[in-house]
Amino acid sequence: MLRAVERKIEQFILELDDDNTVMLYKKLPVGKRLRAKLILKIAGESLSAIKLSAVVEMIHLASLLHDDVIDDAYVRRNRPSINALYGNKSAIMLGDILYSKGFYELNNIDSKVSKIVSNAVTQLSLGEQADVLLANRFNSSKEHYMKMIYQKTASLIEACAYSGAILANKNPIPYQTYGRNIGIAFQIIDDILDITSSSDTLGKPSMHDFVEGKTTLPYIYLYEKLNNDDKTKLISLHKKELSSDELNWILAGFKEYNIIEKCIKEAQTLVEEALSLMNKEGNISLQKIAKDMIDREF
Amino acid sequence: MLRAVERKIEQFILELDDDNTVMLYKKLPVGKRLRAKLILKIAGESLSAIKLSAVVEMIHLASLLHDDVIDDAYVRRNRPSINALYGNKSAIMLGDILYSKGFYELNNIDSKVSKIVSNAVTQLSLGEQADVLLANRFNSSKEHYMKMIYQKTASLIEACAYSGAILANKNPIPYQTYGRNIGIAFQIIDDILDITSSSDTLGKPSMHDFVEGKTTLPYIYLYEKLNNDDKTKLISLHKKELSSDELNWILAGFKEYNIIEKCIKEAQTLVEEALSLMNKEGNISLQKIAKDMIDREF
Repeated sequence: MLRAVERKIEQFILELDDDNTVMLYKKLPVGKRLRAKLILKIAGESLSAIKLSAVVEMIHLASLLHDDVIDDAYVRRNRPSINALYGNKSAIMLGDILYSKGFYELNNIDSKVSKIVSNAVTQLSLGEQADVLLANRFNSSKEHYMKMIYQKTASLIEACAYSGAILANKNPIPYQTYGRNIGIAFQIIDDILDITSSSDTLGKPSMHDFVEGKTTLPYIYLYEKLNNDDKTKLISLHKKELSSDELNWILAGFKEYNIIEKCIKEAQTLVEEALSLMNKEGNISLQKIAKDMIDREF
Repeated sequence: MLRAVERKIEQFILELDDDNTVMLYKKLPVGKRLRAKLILKIAGESLSAIKLSAVVEMIHLASLLHDDVIDDAYVRRNRPSINALYGNKSAIMLGDILYSKGFYELNNIDSKVSKIVSNAVTQLSLGEQADVLLANRFNSSKEHYMKMIYQKTASLIEACAYSGAILANKNPIPYQTYGRNIGIAFQIIDDILDITSSSDTLGKPSMHDFVEGKTTLPYIYLYEKLNNDDKTKLISLHKKELSSDELNWILAGFKEYNIIEKCIKEAQTLVEEALSLMNKEGNISLQKIAKDMIDREF
C-alpha cells in the first residue's frame, strides 16, 4: 500500500509540470512514511486514504525542507539536505511548492479532513517558531516545552489519525488522542536520543539540542532538581559549546536524579494510554506503530 | 470595505493565539491591498468576499516574506523587511504561518474558490522558482519570461478575479481573463520601472534586475534586435555590476530600438483587452483598477 502512496506523490509532482521540481524531489530522502502508514492502518485502502497519505507526506517533506533551513541542518537521514546541496533558497521554494500542491489536493479529498490537516499545518508552523523562540533563553517551563512539541510534532500525527478515522467512518476521538499521544512521545524520545546516543567521533553524546539553546525535557527536569547555585551553573552553560567537564557534569546530574528514565517513563505512559485506547477500539494493528515509536536505541 | 478586510485579517491573526506572530504581523507594511480591492469590486460586499479578500492578502504577504528571503531584499515599501529586522528564519516561519492559516480559512469559504486559490499559490511558488532559475543565465526566450511572470504575479490576481466572479454568481471566464491580463501587464510594467526610474543616489536607473541576472522583457527585445557581436556583448554583461559606460550602452540600445515604448504598448494592449471585456460585462468600476495598474510614473 505504501507503494500506491509513493506513486500518488510522484503523480502529484508530475502534475506540477516542472522539471526542476521533479529533479529536486528525487533528491529528497524517502523516510519511513510513518504518517502514511498511520493513515492507511486506520482508514484502510481507499483512494481517499492513499491521496491523504500522499498529501500529508508532501506536507511533512515541505516542513522538513523549511526546518533544515531554519535549523541550519545540512544532513537529513545520512544524506545531504536540499539546503546543503542547492542552497537555502531552493529549499524554501521547493517547500512552498510541496505545501501548496498538498493544500490544493486536500480539496479533492474531504472538507472536514481538509480543515483538520490545514489547521495542523498552522500548528506545526507555530510550533517551529516556538521552538526557535524558546531557544533564545534557558526555558525551564515544562508547559511551554509540551505545548511546543505538541504543535511542532504531534499536531500533524494527531491530524493523520483523526482524519484517517473520519475517512473510515470511525469515532475519531480515540484516534485523535492516540495520534497526539504517540506524537508527543515520539518527540520526547527524539529529544532523549540527542543525550543518550553517542556521536561517532567522540563516543560521547553531542547534546546538540542544548548547545543550540533547546532545553528539552531532561534539562527542564534537571533544572527542577538542582540547588540554586547549580541552577545558575546550568543556565550559564546554555547555548554554549560545552567542555568535556561541563558535559560530564550535566550527564552526572541526569544520572543522579534518574532523569532519562523519568522522561522515558513519561513517553511510555503516553504510548500505553494510546495502546489501551486502540485495544478498546479493537484496532491492534496500531499497537505496532506505537511501539516502534518508543522502542528505539537509547 | 477595505477596513472590514483589515479587521478580518487581524481576527485571523489573533485566532492563532500567538504573541510573536501578532508582533511580527504589526511590522508588515500594509500595502495597497490591490487583490482585496479587486475581489470586493467583483464579488460585492458579502462576508465570503471579505473573508476571501483577507485570505488572499495573507497569502500575498506570505509570498512576499519568502520572496524577500529568496531575493535578499531588505526593504519593502520603504520600510525594512522582516528578514532585515528579524532574520531570514523569522520571515520563513511567519510566511509559513500566514500561508497555512490562509489555506485553513479557504475551507470556510467555497470549495471551488478554495481550489482556484490554492492552485494559484502553487503556480506562484513555481513562478518564484522559475524566476530564480531563469536568472542563472541570460534568458532570451520571451515564452519562458511570459510563463514565469504569469505564474509569479498574474496567477494570484487571475484567481482573485475568477473567484470573485464565482462568489457573485457571475460568468467567471471574462473576469479570469481580465485578472490574468492585468496581472501580466502589472509585472511587465514593474520590470520596465526598474529600467526607467532613477535611483536616488546616482540619478540613474539601478537596472537591478539585470545585475541580479533577470532578463526582463526589454532585455529580451533588445537581444532580438542586436547583431551577433552586440548580442555577445549584452550576454557578457549579464549578472555583473555595470560600469557607467555599460549601463549607458544598454540604455542607448533601448532608445535606438524604441524598446521601452514597445513594452509599454504590450502592457497597454493587455489592459485594453481587459477593459473591453469589462465593458461588455457592464462592470465599469473595474476599469479604474486596471488603469491604475499601468498609469505609473515611467
